[in-house]
Amino acid sequence: MSIATKPVRYEHGGVAFEAFAAWDDTSDATRPIVLVASTVMGRSRFEEGKARSLAELGYVGVAIDLYGVDKWTTDMEKARVWMDALNADRGLLRDRLLAALQAARDSGAPADPARVAAIGFCFGGKCVLDLARSGADVAGVASFHGLYDAPPFPHGDIKAKILVLHGWDDPLDPPETVLGLARELTEAGADWQINSYGHTVHAFTNPAREGMYNPDSDRRSWLAMRNFLEELFG
Amino acid sequence: MSIATKPVRYEHGGVAFEAFAAWDDTSDATRPIVLVASTVMGRSRFEEGKARSLAELGYVGVAIDLYGVDKWTTDMEKARVWMDALNADRGLLRDRLLAALQAARDSGAPADPARVAAIGFCFGGKCVLDLARSGADVAGVASFHGLYDAPPFPHGDIKAKILVLHGWDDPLDPPETVLGLARELTEAGADWQINSYGHTVHAFTNPAREGMYNPDSDRRSWLAMRNFLEELFG
Repeated sequence: MSIATKPVRYEHGGVAFEAFAAWDDTSDATRPIVLVASTVMGRSRFEEGKARSLAELGYVGVAIDLYGVDKWTTDMEKARVWMDALNADRGLLRDRLLAALQAARDSGAPADPARVAAIGFCFGGKCVLDLARSGADVAGVASFHGLYDAPPFPHGDIKAKILVLHGWDDPLDPPETVLGLARELTEAGADWQINSYGHTVHAFTNPAREGMYNPDSDRRSWLAMRNFLEELFG
Repeated sequence: MSIATKPVRYEHGGVAFEAFAAWDDTSDATRPIVLVASTVMGRSRFEEGKARSLAELGYVGVAIDLYGVDKWTTDMEKARVWMDALNADRGLLRDRLLAALQAARDSGAPADPARVAAIGFCFGGKCVLDLARSGADVAGVASFHGLYDAPPFPHGDIKAKILVLHGWDDPLDPPETVLGLARELTEAGADWQINSYGHTVHAFTNPAREGMYNPDSDRRSWLAMRNFLEELFG
């Protein structure tokens, strides 16, 4: 196996973005695209690592950029301001997600633009739910320790299957928010699953987050995602 | 592959029981045991089929008997009376489960008595949770559309990992019962996961239950169980 990577530059609303695509270049057969939406920190090594892992699984992994290239940072206080700006404008968030989706389809990687899924972590877990809510033509989305509040506007006809990987003790998502998400997705007629993991808090997939990382829930949720992608794409 | 089966007769409290063991006899290597606890209907072709499926996966599948050999029936009204009697005496239910566990260990099938898991459907889903609650030395239990009310006595130190496969619209298990189970298992310090499936009611694994069977949730929950057993036994 040999993993090729490339930057994917695109523009939306006057802002320059750069995604990161990775794929196994021992073959040039087209394959499904799996977007990776980022945590509060924005596009980082963490998401690039996930894109590489997806490449190893036979997909084109694309870590997307949601803040713009002048807003790459390791400073969480700054990142939180940029995240909060998107949380306050869910229409803009949706449009940036759709721009990233289009850029991934046009990336020039050996990708089949008709077969796309998306995964996301933390803020990115909310993003992929919003991508599904937008009605975008995406086969499925998997949200890892995402956030479940719906946008303040009606959503489109949800086409994506939805898999939610949830830490039961996540203080950002108390049980009533899980019930709210289940109700929302049921009323929307979406194909949904929520896997809840006991003794698991936020950020459970991230080894760098001391006291939050949970290796069992990390491994189990990643396997659930792999099965989900296999169901979507065979 | 060639599936061998045998009846496993045992006695408890003056009642005669007969379980059904199945394994792939192309090898006589010892392998893990997976008990199958029955729906309200008691030991039936459905559970025998699951034991055979587990045999094909490399386990000794053992469909256990909870009512006794003079109470095998296809009449749901009768079966419900026998189930209700056990629901009213959770100590007896526990003791019958432990007797079935011992019988499976002593069955003479090529089984490793130190490696045991249990799965169950409907009433059987409650039974395997009670088996875990008993503190029995079982590696894991998987409950399919089970029932979540705890017994009216303190449980033992839960050693079994717990996987709950839950239909979100199951009228027997409204969301507050799921929250209650999560709270109970968290307080007990158990290793637990609950997979919730949208648009899914009770009995979703049973093709014979018209209007309740859900092929997507059946397939997804069975795959989750396979992964769970692989985690337990490698």
